[in-house]
Amino acid sequence: MEKVHALIGERVPRVDSLSKVTGEVKFAGDLKFPRMLVGKVKRSPLAHARILHVDTRKAERLKGVKAVVTGNDTAGIMWGVFGYTQDMALLPRDKVRYFGEEIAAVAAVDEETALEALDLIDLDLEELPAVFDPLESMASDGPLIHDDYPNNINIHVDIDVGDIEKGFKESHLVREDTFTAAEDGYFQGEPYAVVGRFDEAGNLEMWMPNAGPHMKAKPLSNLLKMPLNKVRVRKIAIGGAFGGRSEISPADFICALLTKKARRPVKLVYTREENTINVRMGHALITTIKTGVDRQGRVMARDITCYMDGGAYSSTGPIATSVPFLCMEQAYRMENVRYNGYRIFTNKPVRGMIRMHGRSFACGIDLQLNMLGEALGIDPVTMRLVNARQKGDYTPTKSYVPSCGLTDCIKQAAKKSGWDKKFGKLPPWRGIGIGINSVQTGFPLGIRGGSQAFVKFNEDAGVTLISGVADNGQGNDNMLVQVVAEELGLEMDDVTLITADTEITPNDPGTYSMVTTFAGGNAARLAAVDARNQLFDIAAGLLDANVEDLLLRDKMIFVKGNPDQFIPLKKAVRTGLIQGRPVSGEGHYAPKVEQGREWVNNPKGQLSETFSFGATIAEVEVDPETGKVKTLEVTAAQDVGFALNPLIIEGQFEGSVAMGGQGGMLTEYHLWDKGRCLNPTQMDYKVPLAGDMPKINNIIVESVDPSGPYGAKEAGMSIAMSAAQAYATAIANAIGVTIKDFPMTPDKILTAIENKQKK
Amino acid sequence: MEKVHALIGERVPRVDSLSKVTGEVKFAGDLKFPRMLVGKVKRSPLAHARILHVDTRKAERLKGVKAVVTGNDTAGIMWGVFGYTQDMALLPRDKVRYFGEEIAAVAAVDEETALEALDLIDLDLEELPAVFDPLESMASDGPLIHDDYPNNINIHVDIDVGDIEKGFKESHLVREDTFTAAEDGYFQGEPYAVVGRFDEAGNLEMWMPNAGPHMKAKPLSNLLKMPLNKVRVRKIAIGGAFGGRSEISPADFICALLTKKARRPVKLVYTREENTINVRMGHALITTIKTGVDRQGRVMARDITCYMDGGAYSSTGPIATSVPFLCMEQAYRMENVRYNGYRIFTNKPVRGMIRMHGRSFACGIDLQLNMLGEALGIDPVTMRLVNARQKGDYTPTKSYVPSCGLTDCIKQAAKKSGWDKKFGKLPPWRGIGIGINSVQTGFPLGIRGGSQAFVKFNEDAGVTLISGVADNGQGNDNMLVQVVAEELGLEMDDVTLITADTEITPNDPGTYSMVTTFAGGNAARLAAVDARNQLFDIAAGLLDANVEDLLLRDKMIFVKGNPDQFIPLKKAVRTGLIQGRPVSGEGHYAPKVEQGREWVNNPKGQLSETFSFGATIAEVEVDPETGKVKTLEVTAAQDVGFALNPLIIEGQFEGSVAMGGQGGMLTEYHLWDKGRCLNPTQMDYKVPLAGDMPKINNIIVESVDPSGPYGAKEAGMSIAMSAAQAYATAIANAIGVTIKDFPMTPDKILTAIENKQKK
Repeated sequence: MEKVHALIGERVPRVDSLSKVTGEVKFAGDLKFPRMLVGKVKRSPLAHARILHVDTRKAERLKGVKAVVTGNDTAGIMWGVFGYTQDMALLPRDKVRYFGEEIAAVAAVDEETALEALDLIDLDLEELPAVFDPLESMASDGPLIHDDYPNNINIHVDIDVGDIEKGFKESHLVREDTFTAAEDGYFQGEPYAVVGRFDEAGNLEMWMPNAGPHMKAKPLSNLLKMPLNKVRVRKIAIGGAFGGRSEISPADFICALLTKKARRPVKLVYTREENTINVRMGHALITTIKTGVDRQGRVMARDITCYMDGGAYSSTGPIATSVPFLCMEQAYRMENVRYNGYRIFTNKPVRGMIRMHGRSFACGIDLQLNMLGEALGIDPVTMRLVNARQKGDYTPTKSYVPSCGLTDCIKQAAKKSGWDKKFGKLPPWRGIGIGINSVQTGFPLGIRGGSQAFVKFNEDAGVTLISGVADNGQGNDNMLVQVVAEELGLEMDDVTLITADTEITPNDPGTYSMVTTFAGGNAARLAAVDARNQLFDIAAGLLDANVEDLLLRDKMIFVKGNPDQFIPLKKAVRTGLIQGRPVSGEGHYAPKVEQGREWVNNPKGQLSETFSFGATIAEVEVDPETGKVKTLEVTAAQDVGFALNPLIIEGQFEGSVAMGGQGGMLTEYHLWDKGRCLNPTQMDYKVPLAGDMPKINNIIVESVDPSGPYGAKEAGMSIAMSAAQAYATAIANAIGVTIKDFPMTPDKILTAIENKQKK
Repeated sequence: MEKVHALIGERVPRVDSLSKVTGEVKFAGDLKFPRMLVGKVKRSPLAHARILHVDTRKAERLKGVKAVVTGNDTAGIMWGVFGYTQDMALLPRDKVRYFGEEIAAVAAVDEETALEALDLIDLDLEELPAVFDPLESMASDGPLIHDDYPNNINIHVDIDVGDIEKGFKESHLVREDTFTAAEDGYFQGEPYAVVGRFDEAGNLEMWMPNAGPHMKAKPLSNLLKMPLNKVRVRKIAIGGAFGGRSEISPADFICALLTKKARRPVKLVYTREENTINVRMGHALITTIKTGVDRQGRVMARDITCYMDGGAYSSTGPIATSVPFLCMEQAYRMENVRYNGYRIFTNKPVRGMIRMHGRSFACGIDLQLNMLGEALGIDPVTMRLVNARQKGDYTPTKSYVPSCGLTDCIKQAAKKSGWDKKFGKLPPWRGIGIGINSVQTGFPLGIRGGSQAFVKFNEDAGVTLISGVADNGQGNDNMLVQVVAEELGLEMDDVTLITADTEITPNDPGTYSMVTTFAGGNAARLAAVDARNQLFDIAAGLLDANVEDLLLRDKMIFVKGNPDQFIPLKKAVRTGLIQGRPVSGEGHYAPKVEQGREWVNNPKGQLSETFSFGATIAEVEVDPETGKVKTLEVTAAQDVGFALNPLIIEGQFEGSVAMGGQGGMLTEYHLWDKGRCLNPTQMDYKVPLAGDMPKINNIIVESVDPSGPYGAKEAGMSIAMSAAQAYATAIANAIGVTIKDFPMTPDKILTAIENKQKK
């Protein structure tokens, strides 16, 4: 086959690897500015309390303290994601709603002084009754956490498609099960760090690890009552995001307030505990799933009720409330489906989006389907093949599916894992399981404006790409450079990348909801194409050829079919300069989706322009004496549309298996005592290490999406979802019983084995 | 009259003033980076010598020394401006050609160590015969400074238009005079400072006060053999340029070499002496002018021969060789004219472009014209009115003059200064004089590619303007902001400006040859217009109106003639985002001029797209006992096309009077002893201070250029030229004798008075 692309599809080493390996890369915590102060936060010792008075006088008088801020230093404006539910002050002045919430902060010349100043702040709090369990919280007589949310219900998502009662009536088999899972954490390698300062132009410059500088700048502008061109948000190297670096954090706002008050640079670095508790965490879910299938295993109807423990504030929760359902309905065909999703406030830390959306939901779906399949005598792979989403389908909530390689993923994963030789044929205490899932490439409210990029040529034919995209570690910087180098016939090294600085870089929705390659990649590609068109226009004159006959490759512009007729790219750029036409290009791309806020409560219409699909198969061995699980092999297959860089995609697959499966289903969960998180550090919260990881077989399936850049779409996150499901079903297969509370820790496994043996 | 513009034409305070007044602004010398080293340069103790060996071993062994570089650390590539005459190594390895030339440099942990290391560098030099006088240098038996320039002639510009012999034959009166002037210095407030470092991306980042980052980056890229996207040149606040911050300086190259070798940040700050001697200075000229006039005073023929002392290297000298002639031929109509301009190498520091081009040339023209007028009984103002350039003319070298307010300038200046009541009627030792001149807005080779700008809108309708323009102190930043705010109906404060960073900002020729408002201003305006067109397109839909009926003012888009039908600008921006059309604009502008290198030797065709014109009248009083001149009043009139901001223009006029007249004609010159500059500091070189300045009447004449932004063209430099001429003619008028050697210092004035009294 003729090689269509020079760089796209190649295993190109990442442009950001070298500086990370050598340690030269700078993170926000590494930044130093002259006269920089150290910020520290005073936190609530109560889970729910009215703030009567915060006495900062002693702290202010301490030598070396340069600023103390409380809620009284704020304009009292409430924040909510996309302005949807504005209920969080970020530095409250009336009430605190969870243990550890921010009440005041100081900036001092050193850490010791800052900590000493915290001790000198006197809090006069009136304790209020607190509630920690979402079902208790919903009880009508419980304490109200926010006055305007009756029964502490933050949001109720209500979806009802087809005729669910008819579906169940026509089913051959129906099951109802309830699955639960505790909160999961992000545990980014880098604890949250923010640096604020005023630049020479007098603008507030904020540096932090973040997934969307524009997404941070807008609320900061609003909360600080400063126009956007006075609040410059800059991304810096980031030590992991996983959904936890998207929206504004109290640390951002507090650091900005301290910087404004002290008129000096301020650095605020969160401790590991603060990073866990005070940034965001994943929701705890209670999910009841009722599924009816026909004799062939086809899903005839599904009715799901899900209670999500939202913690004290909305954050991204209202949107997160529908995501587990949407992922499921994308992966599984069904005509009749109902979803009631409730997000409930409790006096616990705030929950938001996370890479693995709703363990109890996603794993429950697959565990239950296997139980139904077992009753029907149909193996799990077949159960998925008969229900798998197909290209050209509409999802229940009416999203058209323009590309879909899910069936391929299932088949290839089954083949590679040796499913047929293993399922039902493994020695005792060994099991194999499969999970399938699908994720979006951008949510309706989240992709506002899409992504825009500029390309400018240097005189020697190198280029600068200016893009608003942020790289959170998943290789976006490399993706952008690869795309532009491809389109302009350059080497990677010829492309200088400027990203993620709200002052300079154009609009970008932020690196979340899996949209970046799709929108940001398309924008960069279009900017390069725009520049190339200008080059061809210039070259056509020089080569006495038609624009449509020209070809750009290896820094040369050729006349197609005539390899001797060419000019160096450089020549076209220089001719442009001589002709007074400096070559530069602009591109923008916004995914075509439904807009409108009603989507949050009732998703309907095109949710995402396209979807990725994944199937993961896990093989495990359970030690019946200890309940410990050894993962023998994982096979991860995903339809990524088109693999721009297989090297990076495989890295994403492997990270997804680690987070979704190895951590998410075996070890990761938070423990609580009356709203206090008992395991906020890695001492007790077990994130898998490299040595814990099994052998992983990566399978890239390419459905070539009609709108993605070169056919590409989201790559990796469908694995994070389906890996959890695969681990769960594999363990159930190994021990012969289905555990319904996640993660599946040794104690739960031992109990399940014991209970089974008792029967 | 209806007010056409909201901001353009207003006396808007400069956007950069506040940070300068408060001291918050940072200059290159203020920059600090972790582990930054101090750079120092070892200089030649001889005016002309072969470098046999440079022994750096002892210096390298000194504790604290992190890098030592010599010519052997260079790739040996020669530099020349626009690649025209590549004869300067910037750090030579074969020969040194002037006293103080760079031979080696060190970077050390502190200044003391660096200076100690310089003493440890052993130079083995073979002294060569040196030549310091340009006429001696041209003598065929003199030492050759560069092997490939016979008779040390760097360039011979040869212009011959019309029939000069016929012109002189038809003249009523002919005079020939020779005028001379010593070198003049720039004496920027800020001595040259460069900081180099490698940024996180591994690119070499260079900060320096500079007029054209792209103009610096290109030779650095070439000399260092690094592509342009690895050499990031950034401008920082600048303490004056005046022509002396345009092209690359040895300090830039040496700092880059030290940074590369030490792999640590390096700061190299020149001493005042180094700034004078080792950056650039103005040429010394010997100009013989022969002019024939008819009975009405009209110039019938002019023959000029000019010898310019170029110092040791070409630099911008080849282009500078024709500039005094071109300025003259633009201001004065004449049909027959010949110019022989020679730039000659000597063993003295390098000379380049300076704000006042060729004192002995420009002042000679006016002094001689007055002598001819006196013989004819025609007063100086009339002599200029009969010869003044008019709109629609072609200059002798065939430049079309699209706008010209010179006659207006002369008349208004004469009126305001009370010329008619004063000329010939002043008390003894008082005199009044007039000078006229004209400057370009961009040279053929210098404007390559023109200027380009991007505008991007923030969601709250503030904008960022990204432009390659550099502000050297003359108010370009303000000009850009004012233009964009005007076109987009914004306030100044709504515009964030990003300029002069080769990595981010698009092409710009640099802030010299008076092109910036014309090219950079037009580019910024066009970028804003592009963005506005997009906004109108969006707004037309929202207002149900035609695009051509829309009007943008005060952050509102109105339907013309219907003040109730409008939307806020913000609404159009946000609608654009919702529609997936982020609003941004691009603009570029390249002045329409002849291209081609042959221009340097023989200028012909459109030299500049337009020209500014100025007339200055000075009134002085000479103390016959001391020879001291007291300037009583200066009236400065210039055709600036259109005054974008009169406040800034008046500042430019006043600075021009200070530099061109008060300093340039009264006190500023360099003294020499065998190639050694005897007065490199302000102790002996007298730059006028604020207290020395006379009352200045500023007259802005607006001819409204057809191509300039809003009709604007160069503003201020025509005054710097004509002020020198006005001072010269005023002194001649006061003492009744014409001094032909400049500046007119007290000793020369006393001698002239004595000689006159002897007669």
